[in-house]
Amino acid sequence: MTSGVVAAHGIDLRAVRRQVDAVLEDFLAGKARAAAGCGHPPEVVRTVRDFLAAGGKRIRAMLCVVGWHAAGGHGDVTSVLRVAASLELFVAFALIHDDIMDDSASRRGRPAVHRALRAQLGGDVRAERLGAGGALLVGNLALTWAQELLHTARLDAGRYPVVHGLYDAMLEEVMYGQYLDVMGTGRGPDDIEAALRIIRLKTASATIERPLQLGAAVAGAGAATMDAFTQLGLPLGEAFQIRDDLLDVFGSPDGACRPGLGDLREGKRTVLLALGLRRANQVQRERLRHLVGRADLRECEAAEVRDILETTGAREATERLITSRYEQVLRVLDAAAFPQAAEVALRDLAITATRYTS
Amino acid sequence: MTSGVVAAHGIDLRAVRRQVDAVLEDFLAGKARAAAGCGHPPEVVRTVRDFLAAGGKRIRAMLCVVGWHAAGGHGDVTSVLRVAASLELFVAFALIHDDIMDDSASRRGRPAVHRALRAQLGGDVRAERLGAGGALLVGNLALTWAQELLHTARLDAGRYPVVHGLYDAMLEEVMYGQYLDVMGTGRGPDDIEAALRIIRLKTASATIERPLQLGAAVAGAGAATMDAFTQLGLPLGEAFQIRDDLLDVFGSPDGACRPGLGDLREGKRTVLLALGLRRANQVQRERLRHLVGRADLRECEAAEVRDILETTGAREATERLITSRYEQVLRVLDAAAFPQAAEVALRDLAITATRYTS
Repeated sequence: MTSGVVAAHGIDLRAVRRQVDAVLEDFLAGKARAAAGCGHPPEVVRTVRDFLAAGGKRIRAMLCVVGWHAAGGHGDVTSVLRVAASLELFVAFALIHDDIMDDSASRRGRPAVHRALRAQLGGDVRAERLGAGGALLVGNLALTWAQELLHTARLDAGRYPVVHGLYDAMLEEVMYGQYLDVMGTGRGPDDIEAALRIIRLKTASATIERPLQLGAAVAGAGAATMDAFTQLGLPLGEAFQIRDDLLDVFGSPDGACRPGLGDLREGKRTVLLALGLRRANQVQRERLRHLVGRADLRECEAAEVRDILETTGAREATERLITSRYEQVLRVLDAAAFPQAAEVALRDLAITATRYTS
Repeated sequence: MTSGVVAAHGIDLRAVRRQVDAVLEDFLAGKARAAAGCGHPPEVVRTVRDFLAAGGKRIRAMLCVVGWHAAGGHGDVTSVLRVAASLELFVAFALIHDDIMDDSASRRGRPAVHRALRAQLGGDVRAERLGAGGALLVGNLALTWAQELLHTARLDAGRYPVVHGLYDAMLEEVMYGQYLDVMGTGRGPDDIEAALRIIRLKTASATIERPLQLGAAVAGAGAATMDAFTQLGLPLGEAFQIRDDLLDVFGSPDGACRPGLGDLREGKRTVLLALGLRRANQVQRERLRHLVGRADLRECEAAEVRDILETTGAREATERLITSRYEQVLRVLDAAAFPQAAEVALRDLAITATRYTS
């Protein structure tokens, strides 16, 4: 039995993270041994382990454990840690596939999986296609293993239908969201509602709402807790993603997060960009349309984009969107009356997810 | 309650097929309604429905139901039909992804999903990448829905761990097999053992062994039945795939299957090709290496390849591999003593899978 992690005034989220990582490491070590025994290529497990080791905040795993505590979970954390670990393998799957679709060069400071496999294939003329294919399969295996962790979490048998329903809903939402994002034809970059819709499907559901609910379901939560997490997930997920988009463009004042070119070069259709386009005058709008989405955007051009986003007030308006959502989160927390340790953790996570640092 | 399909002398496999298709149609109609209600793009469900409607033998679904009968399943077939239907959505996922990886032009007489999406995007310079991304997500949703069908099959709660274990093992095997196939660097096209290894993972497991075992597990089968299906799955899966490879190159004598250029142009590393290379003299081997894998291979060149495969005796040797495996299947069936209706169905399926017609 793995012991709990509730300290006097909250949940020890660092300890949760260590425990989740230990579950993942143990599970993948088993997969490595099995692959060796069956003669499967060893690099698949190695790639997944390296991907997890390279970073990630484990925010979904932490929310899962917090959701469990919030629903009155206590005692043996073995099952909930396994569900939490499953969520982190699911994230690995989603990010590996996202990077193929966007042909992103890097992830967590390393080459994206499809790029690393492509490089391994050297001069093969089919390297680009095969690298993408190999990464697609590494992603699929990460998802399969995520489900295996779930299936072997030894929940009370009666709780599996709810847990599976939530997990399957999460997968469907994130895939529809990504589909809308990838195939978003006919959607203008100034369409704020469309940008928020994708955030709701990709981030609010899969990053906040469903992880909290999955943890709660492991503890056998009732409808009131599930509803509270839905009410919490939407504003917190939106605030989290909008903050992420702001950090990508402007960095953080403490310098921990440097302003970057990633989203601007990719032409990512963020709420920030949509607000900029809406507030821009004719000249500014033409400059934004000309610059954003250029794969070769230079730093001085990015500075011009940032300047337009500042002077139009788009940055400030985006900050206000985050603030209003953060306040909504606090109202939900006030009304929900979760156990104190869980409430403290949720307030901490809400601050972490929405404040101006990386 | 859906009634069973055991006729006097066997299982009515056509009725099974109709019932499985009805489950799929009903499930996807529900997904279409849900998508409309949530504002999700309607073309995802439509694409999956069209893919299923375009063809497919439903062999995995039929084997699942036969496995259930073989293990003594009787009465209400609702649960086993749902597991069987899940397998067909899993196949849709696997084929949609395979077609992306191979950049196949068509599937089941229609454009492959990624090609159809690419065509929809018209002149967009990113059409190739976005079409592949959209198809990847359609595939992922098909897999998610396959799992949802499984999770909502209302099995006896105590049988879920075994069913999930088999399903997760199947997914892992087919993905490792496809990974070996896609990334098969360092493997020569004359490596018969490597070709058989991929068949075992991709076909013997996911097409024969696991579907039979899943049906059996729904009926609560014991270890003896599971072992018999493993013994059956290997030779039958190998024979099935080797026959498929022969049909692709030579067609069938009855003309139902025309000789094609697909595998030869793709350079698929089949057992047939491996035997051809091993038995060829220096001149023939050079011709095979020169011709097989040319994307622009002409019919007259394909005829030369076929001639080499004939004159070296590779075609005949490949036929003998099928025959010996078919006989092995019969020996397993003789020893297993399944209920008569199931045994008749398995013998029929073994003939269907290995005989010289499409």
